[in-house]
Amino acid sequence: MVIMATTSSLTYLPVLERIAEEVDRTPGRGRPADYIPALAACDPRRFGMAVAELDGTVYGVGDWRQPFSTQSITKVFTLALDLAREGDELWEHVSREPSGNPFNSLVQLEYENGIPRNPFINAGALVVTDRLQTRTGDAAGELLTFLRAESGNPELDFDREVAASEATHGDRNAALGHFMASYGNIDNPVPVLLDQYFRQCSVAASCADLALATTFLARHGIRADGTRLLTRSQAKQVNAVMLTCGTYDAAGDFAYRVGLPGKSGVGGGIIAVVPGRCTLCVWSPGLDERGNSVAGVAALDGFTTLTGLSVF
Amino acid sequence: MVIMATTSSLTYLPVLERIAEEVDRTPGRGRPADYIPALAACDPRRFGMAVAELDGTVYGVGDWRQPFSTQSITKVFTLALDLAREGDELWEHVSREPSGNPFNSLVQLEYENGIPRNPFINAGALVVTDRLQTRTGDAAGELLTFLRAESGNPELDFDREVAASEATHGDRNAALGHFMASYGNIDNPVPVLLDQYFRQCSVAASCADLALATTFLARHGIRADGTRLLTRSQAKQVNAVMLTCGTYDAAGDFAYRVGLPGKSGVGGGIIAVVPGRCTLCVWSPGLDERGNSVAGVAALDGFTTLTGLSVF
Amino acid sequence: MVIMATTSSLTYLPVLERIAEEVDRTPGRGRPADYIPALAACDPRRFGMAVAELDGTVYGVGDWRQPFSTQSITKVFTLALDLAREGDELWEHVSREPSGNPFNSLVQLEYENGIPRNPFINAGALVVTDRLQTRTGDAAGELLTFLRAESGNPELDFDREVAASEATHGDRNAALGHFMASYGNIDNPVPVLLDQYFRQCSVAASCADLALATTFLARHGIRADGTRLLTRSQAKQVNAVMLTCGTYDAAGDFAYRVGLPGKSGVGGGIIAVVPGRCTLCVWSPGLDERGNSVAGVAALDGFTTLTGLSVF
Amino acid sequence: MVIMATTSSLTYLPVLERIAEEVDRTPGRGRPADYIPALAACDPRRFGMAVAELDGTVYGVGDWRQPFSTQSITKVFTLALDLAREGDELWEHVSREPSGNPFNSLVQLEYENGIPRNPFINAGALVVTDRLQTRTGDAAGELLTFLRAESGNPELDFDREVAASEATHGDRNAALGHFMASYGNIDNPVPVLLDQYFRQCSVAASCADLALATTFLARHGIRADGTRLLTRSQAKQVNAVMLTCGTYDAAGDFAYRVGLPGKSGVGGGIIAVVPGRCTLCVWSPGLDERGNSVAGVAALDGFTTLTGLSVF
Repeated sequence: MVIMATTSSLTYLPVLERIAEEVDRTPGRGRPADYIPALAACDPRRFGMAVAELDGTVYGVGDWRQPFSTQSITKVFTLALDLAREGDELWEHVSREPSGNPFNSLVQLEYENGIPRNPFINAGALVVTDRLQTRTGDAAGELLTFLRAESGNPELDFDREVAASEATHGDRNAALGHFMASYGNIDNPVPVLLDQYFRQCSVAASCADLALATTFLARHGIRADGTRLLTRSQAKQVNAVMLTCGTYDAAGDFAYRVGLPGKSGVGGGIIAVVPGRCTLCVWSPGLDERGNSVAGVAALDGFTTLTGLSVF
Repeated sequence: MVIMATTSSLTYLPVLERIAEEVDRTPGRGRPADYIPALAACDPRRFGMAVAELDGTVYGVGDWRQPFSTQSITKVFTLALDLAREGDELWEHVSREPSGNPFNSLVQLEYENGIPRNPFINAGALVVTDRLQTRTGDAAGELLTFLRAESGNPELDFDREVAASEATHGDRNAALGHFMASYGNIDNPVPVLLDQYFRQCSVAASCADLALATTFLARHGIRADGTRLLTRSQAKQVNAVMLTCGTYDAAGDFAYRVGLPGKSGVGGGIIAVVPGRCTLCVWSPGLDERGNSVAGVAALDGFTTLTGLSVF
Repeated sequence: MVIMATTSSLTYLPVLERIAEEVDRTPGRGRPADYIPALAACDPRRFGMAVAELDGTVYGVGDWRQPFSTQSITKVFTLALDLAREGDELWEHVSREPSGNPFNSLVQLEYENGIPRNPFINAGALVVTDRLQTRTGDAAGELLTFLRAESGNPELDFDREVAASEATHGDRNAALGHFMASYGNIDNPVPVLLDQYFRQCSVAASCADLALATTFLARHGIRADGTRLLTRSQAKQVNAVMLTCGTYDAAGDFAYRVGLPGKSGVGGGIIAVVPGRCTLCVWSPGLDERGNSVAGVAALDGFTTLTGLSVF
Repeated sequence: MVIMATTSSLTYLPVLERIAEEVDRTPGRGRPADYIPALAACDPRRFGMAVAELDGTVYGVGDWRQPFSTQSITKVFTLALDLAREGDELWEHVSREPSGNPFNSLVQLEYENGIPRNPFINAGALVVTDRLQTRTGDAAGELLTFLRAESGNPELDFDREVAASEATHGDRNAALGHFMASYGNIDNPVPVLLDQYFRQCSVAASCADLALATTFLARHGIRADGTRLLTRSQAKQVNAVMLTCGTYDAAGDFAYRVGLPGKSGVGGGIIAVVPGRCTLCVWSPGLDERGNSVAGVAALDGFTTLTGLSVF
């Protein structure tokens, strides 16, 4: 069941194996997201977990090489790509405070005049995508290029069926887009923005791919090819936003249990960063009522408990 | 300044004249709506007021024959036209409770799962338009036909410039439409719905036209040609919804000061009903901070004070 | 079952009898309020209804002479007593807009800096009581004196057991009092205010008593002894506030169905005013989910349908 | 200006000196809290900062030995003292999620049925105090004993004038207490609870005292005398709650800029933890609009920038 990628990666493998066994024994695993068919069809018994070290070594257990729908996980990469381009100006258009409300809420957006609480709620991610689109002309393409480069996987791609399905069920995001546009906080036409956004959400990638693509955050901003994407300070800042805002309305609980910067998606994936050490990606499609993978959170909880690698 | 339409209409003319003089002496008149150019350009010193009696006699003072942008006033007619067709089923898709929030608020809509509080906030009017569109295939056309027939004015029409302007500034209404669509409470494609909605808002009509078009509510449901649009009970109900919800977030204050069912628009017009007696329409483009015509509310307040014609 | 008070009162008696028969045939009647034992013990099958004419004639059906817990109905009288004393200054401390939220909500209070939406939600009634207390030194005593005089019933009194029970379960009202005090909108010490308030809520009175006590609102401000409590304008205003705010979160529905100014209490009573004609009081302890008497609303709906006496 | 406590503490002293110089050069420092006279009288030019190492060495710059009003900082210690006694049961009565609203908000409390969002907003701290009071009979006394022991300062004490002043301006906290009591989430009588709470807020302590009193969180739960207060896991959890919820509505910004678990008070103090390394306490009475010390946040920002000691 375990596949070792390199000999140097022995350190955490027994930990991953023990976690996989533990997960395997656990009955309830939540329910897959059901708002689009492609997600609803996922088997909640699937489970994979990967660790990527700073040198690019990656290894894992279970379905760690199986591509799944990344969904909101890509918000981290879009944020980094835009932050690298425009720097702190971004924060005039999106805040970086945790949201006390569910991830789609329009309430806070209205009380705060169209400025989303943070870049990881849908409204905030739309703003970040809009800004990256303005700067690059192809936000989704930039994302894809980046993910392929960092993961070393040239076959990583959008899932066109998922993107089309998101568009069909996209009224809430359309509402968010138009609502922020009414406050002057969206530059591109809303349909263009939504197309870019849904393509980003549709990226299919494996735990291995995502753990590797996240390593620049554990390396304080340095990409796989040794070039710098973010300053040391910006990398720290992205980690901070992940920790306080990365898991919808459960950020406090995630920090409490796991104690690592992390970002989840409704496809059942979660990425996490141990700054200066390694990155993790776990996948299991069954979600809790707050939209986070049940087995995924449990696995990360187990990892920090067994290794003592929490930031706290 | 006063134009009499018939000899039988002498009753309230001295009252209207006295009100017009009073208004003329009052300095502050609020500011015209400024979200679209056509409204912003209006002179807040304009003032007109008309009374229509049950027999179709109409008379007025000031600019009572001057067409202005009806805006939300047409929501009353759209409601009546849809209610006449589908009856109480409508109330499963829109409530009839006053809104404690400003007229564009998305907050209550979210807490109440996409069911707007009442047919006179924008969200509720979108739902009514959507349903009338489904039943007629041309909601705006139905409205126009009705208004022309009741007012006896075949030249009453949409203002295409205003409709285009509304569309250009339509992000909030687009957000409302998509948001309710995400709850399954909109049948038609949102762009189709918005086109119908903005055309309705754009109708240009005079105080005389609107006072006449409203008389079916004073005649307990009977149209100008003697046919019945609404049952006696439905006409009473529309009046009740006007009294509790007709003036945005100021319905309580309007009931307190004026004591009549009324409906205002951001074009500066207000219609009001004295059940079994007559209807009123007043126009002056300057608005208070809650979106109601300053001179218009004062004029109606004066009318009920001078005549004792409040429903209370 | 029917008791006639005077020969002149024959007009509406057949209507009341027909309503009582209809109510008798209706199965579901809601559930009594259960937050204090005295209310929870009420039999939801009880039903009484009275009409009082302008000359003080009163008659009714069913349990129309049976005292019940008036609860929020007394808020109307406290409002009138304070308004008579301080006039429009009151409206700087409490608004007169319908509340879009349930009757105990703290949300709107916070957004509006401690100014309650209207005098009939608990927060607003606390403000009115506080102000009447400041002006009289004994707000509850003033209320009792007034109710005895208008009803002609010297035995009408507080129910000390109910008042004590309210105090025991008074944390929400204590929270409201302290919260408004933090905004400087309460003059008296909160414990003093609560004592006055709970005593007012505890008044026990019959349909006959309350219909008579309400007649000053149908007589445009004139009390039973011919003296004036409110100006004509103030009486109209109190009626307007009842219509827009008198039945918790169901004011729109009540206006739509009944079409009269009314005020309900969780004891199952409702008073209503036909301006210039008569007053009504109905009682049945079973409540709907919004706190209004199920049979009470149905009976008033029947009354206006059968008599055509709606204000609309 | 700098006082060294031990020779081993040389490491961070130059850093503190540089920060103090930087602060000294910075003009705007915010305004002291003004809701009670004792705080309003503080000079916003005051500044002190201390570091405590794991072995109990403490040193600092500026007014680091000057007692100030700790206010909300003591919420951390009360949380730890109660968590040590009752463990995870506490989390059934208070959540551990960031609050999207200002620190006194009643809104979220109402939407979440009397369960506060986290132990560091006032409502949550009242719940924790209430529970510690139930378990010890003297919550404030427990706190004082703990703070004296950990700081080694037997003169550390309540400020009776401040406590009395808080009580005089205590209507908001009284409202919170009664409101939660109405949901059954408070065990003790509200006046008893408030007395305990206001005494805790009134504790006067210096940067040196507080840095030392916080070291158990850097030592993974071990007190100054070598005994264990919290399990390793609980200490990590308290740090996580501090990071996500410790600075009112600015937790995201604090994590972004400082990147350490921290807790601020409106007296102008902030404590922070570098897990496994040291603790910090900074004091300067001028606050920003979110209630955090302007110079305090800047000093901590400088510290993590200069030392690279962020958890990210």
